Amino acid sequence: MGRKIFSACNACQNLRRLSKTFEDKKFHLKNLIQDKGRLENFSLKLDGFFYDFSKQRVDDILLNELFDLAGETRAKNSFSDMASGKIVNITENRAALHTAARDFTHDNIALDDLDVMPEIKRVNKQIQYFSKKVHNNELQGSTGKSFTDAVVIGIGGSYLGCKFVYTALKHNIDPLVNLHFLPNVDIDNFGQTIKAIDPETCLWIVISKSYTTTETMANLSQTLLFLKNNHLDPLKHLVTITAKDSPGDHPSNAGLGVFHMFDFIGGRYSVTSAVGGLPLSLAFGFDVFSRFLKGCHDMDLHALNAPEEKNIPLTAALISIWNSNFLHYPAQAIIPYSSALSKLVPHVQQLSMESLGKTITSDGKIIDHQTGVIIFGEPGTNAQHSFFQLAHQGSPFPIEFIGVVKPVYNKDQAKSKGVYNHQELWANMIAQAKALAIGKDNDNKAKYFTGNRPSSTILINDLTPESIGLLLGFYEAKTIYEGFILGVNPFDQFGVELGKVLASDIRDQIRKKNDDETYDLNSLDSATKFYLDTLFKGSL
Amino acid sequence: MGRKIFSACNACQNLRRLSKTFEDKKFHLKNLIQDKGRLENFSLKLDGFFYDFSKQRVDDILLNELFDLAGETRAKNSFSDMASGKIVNITENRAALHTAARDFTHDNIALDDLDVMPEIKRVNKQIQYFSKKVHNNELQGSTGKSFTDAVVIGIGGSYLGCKFVYTALKHNIDPLVNLHFLPNVDIDNFGQTIKAIDPETCLWIVISKSYTTTETMANLSQTLLFLKNNHLDPLKHLVTITAKDSPGDHPSNAGLGVFHMFDFIGGRYSVTSAVGGLPLSLAFGFDVFSRFLKGCHDMDLHALNAPEEKNIPLTAALISIWNSNFLHYPAQAIIPYSSALSKLVPHVQQLSMESLGKTITSDGKIIDHQTGVIIFGEPGTNAQHSFFQLAHQGSPFPIEFIGVVKPVYNKDQAKSKGVYNHQELWANMIAQAKALAIGKDNDNKAKYFTGNRPSSTILINDLTPESIGLLLGFYEAKTIYEGFILGVNPFDQFGVELGKVLASDIRDQIRKKNDDETYDLNSLDSATKFYLDTLFKGSL
Repeated sequence: MGRKIFSACNACQNLRRLSKTFEDKKFHLKNLIQDKGRLENFSLKLDGFFYDFSKQRVDDILLNELFDLAGETRAKNSFSDMASGKIVNITENRAALHTAARDFTHDNIALDDLDVMPEIKRVNKQIQYFSKKVHNNELQGSTGKSFTDAVVIGIGGSYLGCKFVYTALKHNIDPLVNLHFLPNVDIDNFGQTIKAIDPETCLWIVISKSYTTTETMANLSQTLLFLKNNHLDPLKHLVTITAKDSPGDHPSNAGLGVFHMFDFIGGRYSVTSAVGGLPLSLAFGFDVFSRFLKGCHDMDLHALNAPEEKNIPLTAALISIWNSNFLHYPAQAIIPYSSALSKLVPHVQQLSMESLGKTITSDGKIIDHQTGVIIFGEPGTNAQHSFFQLAHQGSPFPIEFIGVVKPVYNKDQAKSKGVYNHQELWANMIAQAKALAIGKDNDNKAKYFTGNRPSSTILINDLTPESIGLLLGFYEAKTIYEGFILGVNPFDQFGVELGKVLASDIRDQIRKKNDDETYDLNSLDSATKFYLDTLFKGSL
Repeated sequence: MGRKIFSACNACQNLRRLSKTFEDKKFHLKNLIQDKGRLENFSLKLDGFFYDFSKQRVDDILLNELFDLAGETRAKNSFSDMASGKIVNITENRAALHTAARDFTHDNIALDDLDVMPEIKRVNKQIQYFSKKVHNNELQGSTGKSFTDAVVIGIGGSYLGCKFVYTALKHNIDPLVNLHFLPNVDIDNFGQTIKAIDPETCLWIVISKSYTTTETMANLSQTLLFLKNNHLDPLKHLVTITAKDSPGDHPSNAGLGVFHMFDFIGGRYSVTSAVGGLPLSLAFGFDVFSRFLKGCHDMDLHALNAPEEKNIPLTAALISIWNSNFLHYPAQAIIPYSSALSKLVPHVQQLSMESLGKTITSDGKIIDHQTGVIIFGEPGTNAQHSFFQLAHQGSPFPIEFIGVVKPVYNKDQAKSKGVYNHQELWANMIAQAKALAIGKDNDNKAKYFTGNRPSSTILINDLTPESIGLLLGFYEAKTIYEGFILGVNPFDQFGVELGKVLASDIRDQIRKKNDDETYDLNSLDSATKFYLDTLFKGSL
């Protein structure tokens, strides 16, 4: 049986019909969750990872239709094609082999008759060797001091995933080298960064696949000037992560070394490549990075091999699609009940919205159904005291709660109201999911809660590298499954191009005015002219 | 003429009708912005603050209807009632007098025949005196060392606004005392906080109006234990910001002092009260805090006195309502092109979503129109490399861009592609608004941009305390105007209550189990029981 496109699936018709029946109050979550076996029937488990969707607006019949949808769109076949190196990024004619970056089982994965594993292994060896030299003080700055800090110069996929993993692990493991992130071309991002480091003990990690990313190149120029003004040798304070044969892959630019990234791994899926590998290995050691890869790989194997009905990322993808396309929720919140996971949300925001925020199919047809939704969130309990008013009494949106069974901090702990802080945290997480589901009647309408607001809860055991790997792998696989089922290419991002082109036009005008202050901006549209006049004037 | 409720306004009928005509391609933004006078006619200015709504989907006729809506709902009268101390928070029978906290012109504002100004002035004097003593080393920790750091123990409105202002000003002014924030009951939030400070030189600022906020009390208990274990006198390392006569307003709890907060200023509007005043004055000095108040006050005066057609927060509120209620956008992004403003978004997220995320009117009737929307965002250019794919080619949402004319960093600057980093930043900000508006045809549908995606652009001059005050005051006034026009009470938050009640039930169970490990959890629903069993077991 061939692959069907989303809107042509029988399951889609059925789901649309079922979505009407779900308006009936008998399908209100407060009724659905009465069922004794509810949790058992609507949750899935993998070693160290638990996914509870019992508070989603689903029942057995509905779930069967969702799995039929996965079957009709042949989502698992696509995933398997991806992992074996087939060209799944059709618009860019590329494979998508981030899974190979953490593949400990395969000796080789063929891509265009080229085996990618040796190159992946070579770069990992290089990372291991380099980070060890830094930790052993064999590699030092140009004034002979050890590196205590590293600044990642990279934007988008070149830092968001790494920042998430770094922030999470930093709660658990004291960094050997502190990481800082310089993504923004805003000069004040640079200004704050140099306040936080000592130039003599700082290593700068330039990350750009093409080595042409405007922001990254601008921040690199600024950094080189800064190093020069501090009488430091730039080449002894710089490493480069870039594609083979890019302008950065040249001894004159490389600094202390070049680490290759591959065009079969896209930015937002690149945490497990050198993009995350080098900074994270510098911070925590290569062994910790390897343990993180192991967690990702365990999730990959599950996503690839578990049957549909037991497949966690696939099930989660189907539920997202049910919520967006049939129940018409325009957004999804992610609320980790863990400070350590605070940077998961910006990472998944990019991963999901850049992968799925599209309105054409992989083969160029316009889509008439919902694709990606807005992803946002803050850690709980903070979020409860921020936007949860709207979550409970305003326009509803589904929520993904994340709990960590065992926190890191294990020194003396005080009780308050008879419980420890971590227990209080969990009491709140459990209560929020329940309150959203059941609601509460009240004659005072100000205190009335409609309920029937769906949520999932994910649990991981702890904040070990393995657990963080499981979580990262889960969101990658979930996003990709959504893309395959919805029929969009989760690996391209043509939507960012137009802004770049127009910015380039405006940059040209600024450059001309920089070169010749009498240059006339009158050819510009009046809004652009106003903004540039204001910029050159320096005040409103 | 009396106040009309939103849905009964003539303007609402007309706006609904006009929203249909706006589907016509003649109202596509690429056509609307052709008009030579567009920017001039659809922008407003106040000294140091510029608001450009020329790329919103509006025209003259539409704008008139929006101002009629403001007139019919008598929004300006409500705002004036608020500022003069009338009971505008009806459900809680309270005034909402955050504007009084920065009122330099009035000698008195009557509230229930009580003049609130002397109390506000008294607390400000106390803040000034206290922070000066810390800066002059007259007040020290229990081992005789000066305070270098302060931790704010407070959640929601007790920290989000302060964190925004602190982060913004820190880019401009080196702190005298570094601030840290401990909102989350997550013990790992505490664990990370104590890694960042030296207990001997750290002051803890406990902020809770009722002095019963669960998270804050739990973190206070944890802090007291920590101070004790470090052989420090808690009373010499603690100050308290709370309501008069709360349990915290007692010498045994107060520590180095009690600063009062007032029940006529709600949490999310409290940055200009002691809640922001004490931490910010410790960080930057009371003079800087006063300059920030001045900026807020300037915006208040404008919001209060400018006629509707010239009133920036009122106009911005009307445009938000047009976007949410008539063009049916479910969310709004805020994208500051400034790293320094990165914490504005979480602040406005709370301010707006907690104020407007409601489905009943101020007087208890169920609302059938859209109220609050999801607010989210990240700084540009970072956001361009994250979720802007969806902004350009996925389901559209309006965006508010914010630009800062003059950055802080003024040392040596490198050029890249012929422009400085701040110029590159602005080229991108200008280009994004334009690209979203005009779109681009392309036979290759993967590279086709629909355009007609609305945005506003706000400019402030710089990152001075006055400019940050204007920005804070703008979002407060805009949110309040939205509430008044939509007919919801922007000052209450009953939607957070149900979760608290259910969390309290679960906490009771945990407490009983803590006290007696044989305590039987079988009376709980199966999901809650599963989560508590997992928590007590300590692993999945």
